[in-house]
Amino acid sequence: MALRNPFRNAKVKETDDLGFGTRITGERDRLIAKDGSFNVERVGMKTWSPYQDLVEMTWWRFFGVVIAFFVMVNVLFAFILNGVGINCLNGVKQGTWLENFEQAWFFSVQTFTTVGYGSISPSCISTNFVAATIALVGLMSAALATGLLFVRFSKPTSQLVFSKNAIITPYQNGQSFQFRIANKRSSRLINLDVKLTMSWVEANEHGMKGRKFARLKLEREKVVMLPLNWNIVHPIDEESPFWERTPEDIKEMNVEVIVLIEAFDESFSQTIFANGSYCDEEFLYGVKWKPMYYPDPSGSGKTILDLSVIDEVLPTA
Amino acid sequence: MALRNPFRNAKVKETDDLGFGTRITGERDRLIAKDGSFNVERVGMKTWSPYQDLVEMTWWRFFGVVIAFFVMVNVLFAFILNGVGINCLNGVKQGTWLENFEQAWFFSVQTFTTVGYGSISPSCISTNFVAATIALVGLMSAALATGLLFVRFSKPTSQLVFSKNAIITPYQNGQSFQFRIANKRSSRLINLDVKLTMSWVEANEHGMKGRKFARLKLEREKVVMLPLNWNIVHPIDEESPFWERTPEDIKEMNVEVIVLIEAFDESFSQTIFANGSYCDEEFLYGVKWKPMYYPDPSGSGKTILDLSVIDEVLPTA
Amino acid sequence: MALRNPFRNAKVKETDDLGFGTRITGERDRLIAKDGSFNVERVGMKTWSPYQDLVEMTWWRFFGVVIAFFVMVNVLFAFILNGVGINCLNGVKQGTWLENFEQAWFFSVQTFTTVGYGSISPSCISTNFVAATIALVGLMSAALATGLLFVRFSKPTSQLVFSKNAIITPYQNGQSFQFRIANKRSSRLINLDVKLTMSWVEANEHGMKGRKFARLKLEREKVVMLPLNWNIVHPIDEESPFWERTPEDIKEMNVEVIVLIEAFDESFSQTIFANGSYCDEEFLYGVKWKPMYYPDPSGSGKTILDLSVIDEVLPTA
Amino acid sequence: MALRNPFRNAKVKETDDLGFGTRITGERDRLIAKDGSFNVERVGMKTWSPYQDLVEMTWWRFFGVVIAFFVMVNVLFAFILNGVGINCLNGVKQGTWLENFEQAWFFSVQTFTTVGYGSISPSCISTNFVAATIALVGLMSAALATGLLFVRFSKPTSQLVFSKNAIITPYQNGQSFQFRIANKRSSRLINLDVKLTMSWVEANEHGMKGRKFARLKLEREKVVMLPLNWNIVHPIDEESPFWERTPEDIKEMNVEVIVLIEAFDESFSQTIFANGSYCDEEFLYGVKWKPMYYPDPSGSGKTILDLSVIDEVLPTA
Repeated sequence: MALRNPFRNAKVKETDDLGFGTRITGERDRLIAKDGSFNVERVGMKTWSPYQDLVEMTWWRFFGVVIAFFVMVNVLFAFILNGVGINCLNGVKQGTWLENFEQAWFFSVQTFTTVGYGSISPSCISTNFVAATIALVGLMSAALATGLLFVRFSKPTSQLVFSKNAIITPYQNGQSFQFRIANKRSSRLINLDVKLTMSWVEANEHGMKGRKFARLKLEREKVVMLPLNWNIVHPIDEESPFWERTPEDIKEMNVEVIVLIEAFDESFSQTIFANGSYCDEEFLYGVKWKPMYYPDPSGSGKTILDLSVIDEVLPTA
Repeated sequence: MALRNPFRNAKVKETDDLGFGTRITGERDRLIAKDGSFNVERVGMKTWSPYQDLVEMTWWRFFGVVIAFFVMVNVLFAFILNGVGINCLNGVKQGTWLENFEQAWFFSVQTFTTVGYGSISPSCISTNFVAATIALVGLMSAALATGLLFVRFSKPTSQLVFSKNAIITPYQNGQSFQFRIANKRSSRLINLDVKLTMSWVEANEHGMKGRKFARLKLEREKVVMLPLNWNIVHPIDEESPFWERTPEDIKEMNVEVIVLIEAFDESFSQTIFANGSYCDEEFLYGVKWKPMYYPDPSGSGKTILDLSVIDEVLPTA
Repeated sequence: MALRNPFRNAKVKETDDLGFGTRITGERDRLIAKDGSFNVERVGMKTWSPYQDLVEMTWWRFFGVVIAFFVMVNVLFAFILNGVGINCLNGVKQGTWLENFEQAWFFSVQTFTTVGYGSISPSCISTNFVAATIALVGLMSAALATGLLFVRFSKPTSQLVFSKNAIITPYQNGQSFQFRIANKRSSRLINLDVKLTMSWVEANEHGMKGRKFARLKLEREKVVMLPLNWNIVHPIDEESPFWERTPEDIKEMNVEVIVLIEAFDESFSQTIFANGSYCDEEFLYGVKWKPMYYPDPSGSGKTILDLSVIDEVLPTA
Repeated sequence: MALRNPFRNAKVKETDDLGFGTRITGERDRLIAKDGSFNVERVGMKTWSPYQDLVEMTWWRFFGVVIAFFVMVNVLFAFILNGVGINCLNGVKQGTWLENFEQAWFFSVQTFTTVGYGSISPSCISTNFVAATIALVGLMSAALATGLLFVRFSKPTSQLVFSKNAIITPYQNGQSFQFRIANKRSSRLINLDVKLTMSWVEANEHGMKGRKFARLKLEREKVVMLPLNWNIVHPIDEESPFWERTPEDIKEMNVEVIVLIEAFDESFSQTIFANGSYCDEEFLYGVKWKPMYYPDPSGSGKTILDLSVIDEVLPTA
């Protein structure tokens, strides 16, 4: 009897197409962090990808890296120039080692950036040769730095807003699980496609607990456009893992609903993906959504979409 | 009886896959503006995306922004140079503050653009340091400006032409709703896919009016290529919301037919989308299309496609 | 009787998903030129797209345009510099108008390309201001020119080779229509998809001739990869418009088989399309393909694919 | 009797959607090299694609090419400058031919890279004209070099790790063929799709040996995400070419299982493909996978994925 699992529902079709294992990890841990990233850490293999790091790091770090590189590479060249002979640079006011080094550094910068005032210029083969090298390295480095800058700048920023909570609310003759999304920007998102997977903890016949996964059926899996907000609705029928579950059950099952949204962003003409996840502590009961849009009172004929309302709910009378 | 809705047609399958709500907005307002944009305004959340703005603004505004930035950033640096000491710039003819400022600005520009004539050049550490900064900022700014310029220039321009009107015209044994499109350019559009959704206003059993949506069935939803023009034909059968509607009905129903076209543009190797919409006042009755193409009279063996004819119709005898 | 059409085959499913009209154009004209372009000319609307032109013109024309622009824009600036006062350029050896103009032009070039030797440099506000403008225009122009250059250079070149002829040859218990393609390069083409449409001329019951179109069924419509060559085989069954047609019939029907191939090019990570067309005069009868590949005789274990054989056929004994 | 083929299995559905011919190549040669490339060599047609070469060559070769080009093009211009008259370059210290040539080369480099110190500058029309040409060529060359550099740098690097071996191991009530993959990086791979094709050698009724191909059915062909590792499982049922084969049979059949994986890489927002292949000598029997992930012992709540374990197996008790 102890082994009887109150949460087994024969009608639920299990799946693992999220690629999370069924072996249980800490029961109360989310699989998907609130920012949509996986709650997974990789070890045992060098997995560094400079490009990806440089594209995904913060702007502060990025400029830090650029400036540090800019300073250091020219320091390096300044050393070389000092080595091959500072006297081979016209226009350098000979002085202490430091003064010479400073001027060599500035000359290197002027060459690296291809500014080349000429107030300092190479007068021997040696320095001419170093200068040619600096210019070439400068062009290449500028290509990487500016290319990365532009890729970062032109990366589609996440523009989908998710409601903070999911709600369990009446729908037609039964209950439903709902959350809603909207497009923050006026850019057009096209051919949106939503996949919902529920994950919960359940004991098998030996009473050993494991994670289960099931795809949640939706009232509508695709929309062509997203001009306003979109209520994503999972009707709770017999085949739903929510079927006949009380809020207490849901808490005990340690439910997490994982969301994957695919869409085509016309402004960036790229396919974009958005991840999200709702855990049982983010579910609300006995409420319904507060409408987000209304005709422009000024009578402009436009429809106003108020994004600040996306999290707001009203009690179901 | 007052509640009886003359426009209910049980055979029509409703849908809302356009993501427009059914709550009625001003009855006579279009959902999709003639330029294909949504008739929606977003409030309540900062939704600014500098990249998208800079890509989508007019050319005049874009160049305005570029020039303004170019002037102002160098003004800023000119102030700094004046601050750290104009006398640390070789070749500056000392004069009034304004004269110094002008020369500092021009020096800044020469460095920012990496021209670096050298007629003015930094002679102290301070100015050398500022100059290095200007050159670095210049390279970065140029990357953004030129990258944006190129993205704008290489953006696929809308090349699909829609006929100004839609027509309701005999087709096989019945009637049909038709409009036509053509490719303005000789670039190849491939795998075209058209979706038509009709929206109309209808009262429910309580006489309360709301928007309804239904997908319109088409004679052909996809074509592989678009060498000439394409007649998009919705045959009006029993399942069509047009079924047994008079022009008066259609006007009263406040019909809007929303078009979404997806295609692959080979020249830009990008997927492109085109939106359009036809409101009841843009429907024509008792007409048919004037042919748009004919064999080249000069006998070159080519087919001539006359795009200027796309809006022209002929009376149906 | 005169009206009976010898070419009608009730089993053939007609289609027009190529978007070519059925209205007959010159009977003996191809719809698709041998290079895959449409045999169509657009009139009646400005359809110019500078980007597309610049990307698709020949390399000679492209460099011609670049050089012409480079020369002319600097000529323009040289005029302006002369206007505002050549004496405001340090280092100019005053001389005849032409000599001044030459030096102004060279100064403009040095600024436009941001070389800025400084042997000539602006000494008044006016010329400094013009110089700043030249440098800005130079940066922008360079962005377009170099961006276009790179887009042209990195454009996937057509790498699919089609056999010059199509053959009608025994296949299983019947006949088949075949041609073959191969990948010229070692780059990987993935998920190839082929569509074949046959177009022919046929008289309707009133003896009026028109173009007909039918999709040809294939032994295989998709392959996952294309390591060697691919024989594209249309088995001629009862539903084929080739069914029971003699070579004479086919000539009289003015047959054209139009090919559209879609694939994903991994090296360029782009979807590519290739168009082709075979007219009746390009059909061969009573032949079969000469094999294109064989194990490396040197015993390296590699398979040798001999592209020079792609057009070669052998008589069917 | 001699002709009876011990390996014929009527239930196996053959296919050739890999595009490898059935004509037998060296029996013991792989069709797909371990790095995923085809074991095919192309002859008989010029198939050179400079862009692809420059993108796919090693970094060492790439920089070699860039430097060689940089040196040689400036050598060329140095010759020209010497030709038109070294005395037309201000600042050149006339000397031996070699000394002049050196200075001409450095001047050319300074112009090519648009550094333009001005310590040497053109003083005649002839040299001014050459200098203008150098600057233009320099801008264009820099565009190609830096563009290629960035494309190479931003190319998605193969991030999928395959297990070294495939295993044949119990699964449900029968046996299965398995291998596993994981994502080396934390970047998100989305909508993974796996295709498995088995190739083996079999004699036909005349005892003539040929290659056969069959698609292998999988327990799951797609996963939405790949947060951990993915076991790709082919259950060996009656329709499988592995059905009732002993390890000896498999060796004799010269089995090769060819893998094609398609996925969308969100960081690079590109579709990526990965190829792999397992030959019979890479199969292991009587083993099962060692688990790759476990809850973080430090109790961070994260799941640890240990990529170093991917090749490790445990004996099946």
